[in-house]
Amino acid sequence: MIQAKQLTIALLGAGSMGSAVGHRLTQGGARVLTTLEGRSAASALRAREAGMEDASLESLAACDFILSIVPPAVAIETAARLVPVLEHANSKPVYVDCNAINPATVEQIARTLEPTGAPFVDGAIIGMPSAPKFYMSGAHAARTQALADYGLVVRMLDGPVGAASALKMSYAGITKGLTALGSAMSLAAIRNGAGDALLDELAESQPALAAWLAGNVPRMPPKAYRWVAEMEEIAQFIGDELAEHRIYEGAAGLYARLAHDKDATDTLERFFSERKN
Amino acid sequence: MIQAKQLTIALLGAGSMGSAVGHRLTQGGARVLTTLEGRSAASALRAREAGMEDASLESLAACDFILSIVPPAVAIETAARLVPVLEHANSKPVYVDCNAINPATVEQIARTLEPTGAPFVDGAIIGMPSAPKFYMSGAHAARTQALADYGLVVRMLDGPVGAASALKMSYAGITKGLTALGSAMSLAAIRNGAGDALLDELAESQPALAAWLAGNVPRMPPKAYRWVAEMEEIAQFIGDELAEHRIYEGAAGLYARLAHDKDATDTLERFFSERKN
Repeated sequence: MIQAKQLTIALLGAGSMGSAVGHRLTQGGARVLTTLEGRSAASALRAREAGMEDASLESLAACDFILSIVPPAVAIETAARLVPVLEHANSKPVYVDCNAINPATVEQIARTLEPTGAPFVDGAIIGMPSAPKFYMSGAHAARTQALADYGLVVRMLDGPVGAASALKMSYAGITKGLTALGSAMSLAAIRNGAGDALLDELAESQPALAAWLAGNVPRMPPKAYRWVAEMEEIAQFIGDELAEHRIYEGAAGLYARLAHDKDATDTLERFFSERKN
Repeated sequence: MIQAKQLTIALLGAGSMGSAVGHRLTQGGARVLTTLEGRSAASALRAREAGMEDASLESLAACDFILSIVPPAVAIETAARLVPVLEHANSKPVYVDCNAINPATVEQIARTLEPTGAPFVDGAIIGMPSAPKFYMSGAHAARTQALADYGLVVRMLDGPVGAASALKMSYAGITKGLTALGSAMSLAAIRNGAGDALLDELAESQPALAAWLAGNVPRMPPKAYRWVAEMEEIAQFIGDELAEHRIYEGAAGLYARLAHDKDATDTLERFFSERKN
């Protein structure tokens, strides 16, 4: 028997972040539903291990909350798929888009969902799957405070839909952007016979950056493929009219190559790991 | 009377770095010549205050060393101007190109000077005018060790012409690149109502980066105009065939705007300085 007050949460997406959040919520006492239709065997396994239950779209629409935690490229279609069932639902769940997408895309999703009557919240996840923090913005953000009782770290931003996503974009633009700079410049220095000199000079005059790069660049390769779309979102976040959007087009191009260039990522991992000793 | 063994050094360029190096060398006991023909009144004043003497091109060619410390865009023409007088000189000075230019440009300068017989050294300056370090590479690099006796910090790189410049490019690509990321993302976060949240989150989860940005972004505005050409050199250092060269085209575009957009740089300075207190 499910207790009367138990929160039920629909979690769209069972990637590494989605399943980690699902596990945290089930451990916290929530019932977590998802739809595994069309998902990979790995996703299905991760979802089950996280204690998430496979459910119909109608069941998802009957939850208290819907959390969308999917790759940036499918955030819009994920919301659109829910529109028909949400329109026919009697009670409306709070839809929280937690994806790494730019504010304009978030507003597009909010508009897509508007006819359904489901309250929309702009969410952003900062941190690793092991310790995610949720930032929330928009008129209905306060309603997500309930998730804190089920194990999530939830912080309210005093801003409209778009503010949480802007925080995510700008934070990732600095951290994943610096990982791109460190990777691009290390590879270029190595190609030109200046790799060791670069690390020595950074260690001497920029010890904080040297330590940061040694800690972060080697962890990037398995995530590079996911960061391509995120860098493209950040380029759009800046906007075509400002020249610096090209910084993130360049970073997207770098990560697109590194996702497939094992020689380059092996070189980077060796380069930074040798120097830690 | 000039002592027999006093080193005479031709210093091309009397910008903030060039004049600081000139001052260091004259304080160290060297005689430092430059040519003020066609230079601004500010450069002429800086040169004189640094103890540098105005001299003809022929006198420069008779020095022990020629140090080129000029804006990246004029490094080639600065060398080319010296070619006729160097060709006719009996003894050949060591020509050290110390500019923030990419290895291919350095090689072009080396080829330009080759017919003169003057030994060529690839130099790179890392650090502020108050504490510059000189890295030297190429077959004749060891000859620049003499400059250490006159107050310069000189370090040899075990590499050909191009290695010192590659170090400079990759080091500046990380440090001035991160300044670009921090500027672009702070301005975008502020535009989207997430500026304070960004600084709070960085302070909490990326304290090293938060401190670095607070220390470096506010010092960037007066240098932005000079960094445009340097970012373009770094883009060429990467090469057109690699997508990440666009990172630095974007950074060049950002600095080109910030060099003239006082509203934006005032915003950045206020943004970071408010948070230091």
